[in-house]
Amino acid sequence: MKAGIFIKPGEVRVEDRPMPEIQKPTDAIIKIVRASVCGSDLWWFRGISKRESGTPTGHEGIGIVESVGSEVTNVKPGDFVIAPFTHGCGHCAACKAGFDGNCLNRETSSINGYQAQYLRFVNANWALVKIPGQPSDYTPEMLNSFVTLSDVMATGYHAAATAEVKPGDTVAVMGDGAVGLCGVISAKLRGAKRIIAMSRHEDRQKLAREFGATDVVPERGDEAVKHVMELTGAGVDAVLECVGTEQSVDTATKIVRPGAIIGRVGIPQKPDMNTNQLFYNNTGLRGGIASVTTYDREELLQAVLDGKINPGKVFTKQFTLDQLQDAYDAMDQRQAIKSLLIVDDQA
Amino acid sequence: MKAGIFIKPGEVRVEDRPMPEIQKPTDAIIKIVRASVCGSDLWWFRGISKRESGTPTGHEGIGIVESVGSEVTNVKPGDFVIAPFTHGCGHCAACKAGFDGNCLNRETSSINGYQAQYLRFVNANWALVKIPGQPSDYTPEMLNSFVTLSDVMATGYHAAATAEVKPGDTVAVMGDGAVGLCGVISAKLRGAKRIIAMSRHEDRQKLAREFGATDVVPERGDEAVKHVMELTGAGVDAVLECVGTEQSVDTATKIVRPGAIIGRVGIPQKPDMNTNQLFYNNTGLRGGIASVTTYDREELLQAVLDGKINPGKVFTKQFTLDQLQDAYDAMDQRQAIKSLLIVDDQA
Repeated sequence: MKAGIFIKPGEVRVEDRPMPEIQKPTDAIIKIVRASVCGSDLWWFRGISKRESGTPTGHEGIGIVESVGSEVTNVKPGDFVIAPFTHGCGHCAACKAGFDGNCLNRETSSINGYQAQYLRFVNANWALVKIPGQPSDYTPEMLNSFVTLSDVMATGYHAAATAEVKPGDTVAVMGDGAVGLCGVISAKLRGAKRIIAMSRHEDRQKLAREFGATDVVPERGDEAVKHVMELTGAGVDAVLECVGTEQSVDTATKIVRPGAIIGRVGIPQKPDMNTNQLFYNNTGLRGGIASVTTYDREELLQAVLDGKINPGKVFTKQFTLDQLQDAYDAMDQRQAIKSLLIVDDQA
Repeated sequence: MKAGIFIKPGEVRVEDRPMPEIQKPTDAIIKIVRASVCGSDLWWFRGISKRESGTPTGHEGIGIVESVGSEVTNVKPGDFVIAPFTHGCGHCAACKAGFDGNCLNRETSSINGYQAQYLRFVNANWALVKIPGQPSDYTPEMLNSFVTLSDVMATGYHAAATAEVKPGDTVAVMGDGAVGLCGVISAKLRGAKRIIAMSRHEDRQKLAREFGATDVVPERGDEAVKHVMELTGAGVDAVLECVGTEQSVDTATKIVRPGAIIGRVGIPQKPDMNTNQLFYNNTGLRGGIASVTTYDREELLQAVLDGKINPGKVFTKQFTLDQLQDAYDAMDQRQAIKSLLIVDDQA
C-alpha cells in the first residue's frame, strides 16, 4: 500500500509499505478515504521538533473499517468512521472523566500513519466514531467536515469547552489557523454572543467572520490588549488560546475579566509562566490535548450532520496522497489554511 | 472607641481611636459583635509582608448596622450582618460574574479595621449579608460560624467552587489551617464522596475527619504523592490548594487525574510555575480571592442556619478585644487553629 513517510525536515515521500495487520483484539484496520495535514505536523516538518526518519506520517482522517479484532463489537467491516487521533479506551479514569486525549491506556505507536491507504487503529472499540451511511451518501464538503472531526474541530472545541464558554459570553480567540477558526465555530456553537477573532490575515479574517466572529483584532501584544479592552470594557468572559507562543499566552492573561478562563490548545512554547497574575485576577488556566471521541459523540458529529457547522471550509487546498509533499509545502508556505488529502477518490 | 492597631512585626495594640463616620452614600457603620484573626494576618504579624505601623487591623467580623449612607437601602440600622472582607459593589463585571473578591469598584481603604468596636464598611448596600434576627437569637457556636462567613469559610468554599467539586468526586485538600478545614467542609457540602485531608497535626486531622475527611495523608512532597496515588489509582478529581507554598502547589499538580482542576486560595509564594505539566495532563488551575458575598447568599448562610455545616469549630481559642496580642500570639505559635475575638460580650 501507499504510505506517507517522513524523510527529513522539509521532505516527505509516499512509499510502498506492507499492509498493516490486526495485532491486538482491540485493533481495527481502516481503509482511509480522506486524510489531512495538521498544523502540529509542521513542527517536525520544519525541524523544530525531532522525528525519526522513515516513520509514517499523519494523525487525521476518515475511512471504512476493513477488519476488526475479536474484542471490537461497536463497529464492523464496512462501517464508515472518523478515526480520532486520540485513541481513547473508554474505560480508564481519564476517558470516563471525558478526557480521552489523556487516555491512560493510550499506545504511542498508534498516533501516526493516517496519511496512507490503510491504518492500524488501536483501542478501536470505543475511540472510533461511526458516521451513518457511506461516503457516497455525502457531498465532498460534508466529507471535509468529517475529516476535521478527527482532530482540528475537536481541538478548537476543547479550547471552548475548557474555557467554559456559555450562552451570552464575550469570547476572544487567539490564533487564526485551522484550530483557531474551529475555535470560533465552537464559541458560536456554545452560544457566545460576541466573538473577537485575533487575526491579521485577510483570508482568515473573512473565514472567521463567516464562522461567527463579530469583531476582528489584527494587533498583537500591548496594542491587542488595548483594542480588546476598548471593545469590552472589563475584558472578555473566556479566551480560546490556539497559538501557544509566549506572546499569545501573555496577551490572553491580560484581556480577561476577573474569573474568566483561558482554554489552551496551542502547544505551549514556554513552560514557565508567572501564575500570580492569574491568581490575583481569579483567571483560570485550563486545556491540553482534546477529547476527540467524547466531543464528536456528544455534539460535533450531529452538528455537522445537521449542517449547523461547516468546519470543512478550513481546507483551502486539496491534494491526492501522491502529492503529499505539495500538501505540506502549501501549509508550510501559508498558501493553504489547511491541506486536504484525497486518499481514495472512488469514495 | 477601641481599635486594634499594628505597631511592628510581632506587636499589635488596642488603642483609643475616633469613631468612624459615613464618608460616602454607599457606606455603613457597623458595631462589631465578633471578629477574628486570619491566617493571612500572620504574614504582616511575622514581618514577611510589609505593613505600615499605626494601621488598623482585621478583616473578618459580624455586627449590627449602626448607620447607613443615603444610597444604602438593603440594610438598615439595627440589622445583624456578616461583614465580608471583599466589599463587592454588586454591579461591575466582576461582581456580576460572581467574582466579588475582584470587584472593580473595590476601595483598598476598606479592607481593615474589623478588630475594633466600630467599622466603616464601604459598598455596604450589596456586600453586607443580612443574618435573620439578632445575635441574642443564636448560640455562641452559631455566632462563631457566622464569623467564618466573612472570610475563611467562603475562602475554603472558593477553593472547592473553582476546583469544580461535584457530587461523587474524590478530592484532596492541601493544608489543614482554618481555610483548609473549611475546604473539607465545602467539598462535603458539594457532594464529594471521598475527601483526603493532607494534614500532619493530630488536632487538625481530628477536626478534618469531623468535617467530613475520609482519609488523612500526613506526608509531604514525593511521599505524599505516592500515598495519594496508592489511595486513588489515577489521582483525584479535584484539589483544594489552601497553602500556597511551592511544595504544596507542586504536590497538587502531581496527584490529579487528567482533566482535574486545582482550586487555589493559598496566597502563592512563588510566581513562576512550569505550566507544561498542567497542559499535558489537562490539569486546570483556577482560584484566587474568594467571592464572599456571592457564596454566603447562594449557599453558605443557609447551610449554617440549617446546621448543615459548623465552620465555627475552627475557633479553638477565644479572646476579648483587649487581649488582641494574645489572640495573635496563639495563632502565631500554633496554639490555636484560629482565634476568635469577642468584641461585644453583651451581644
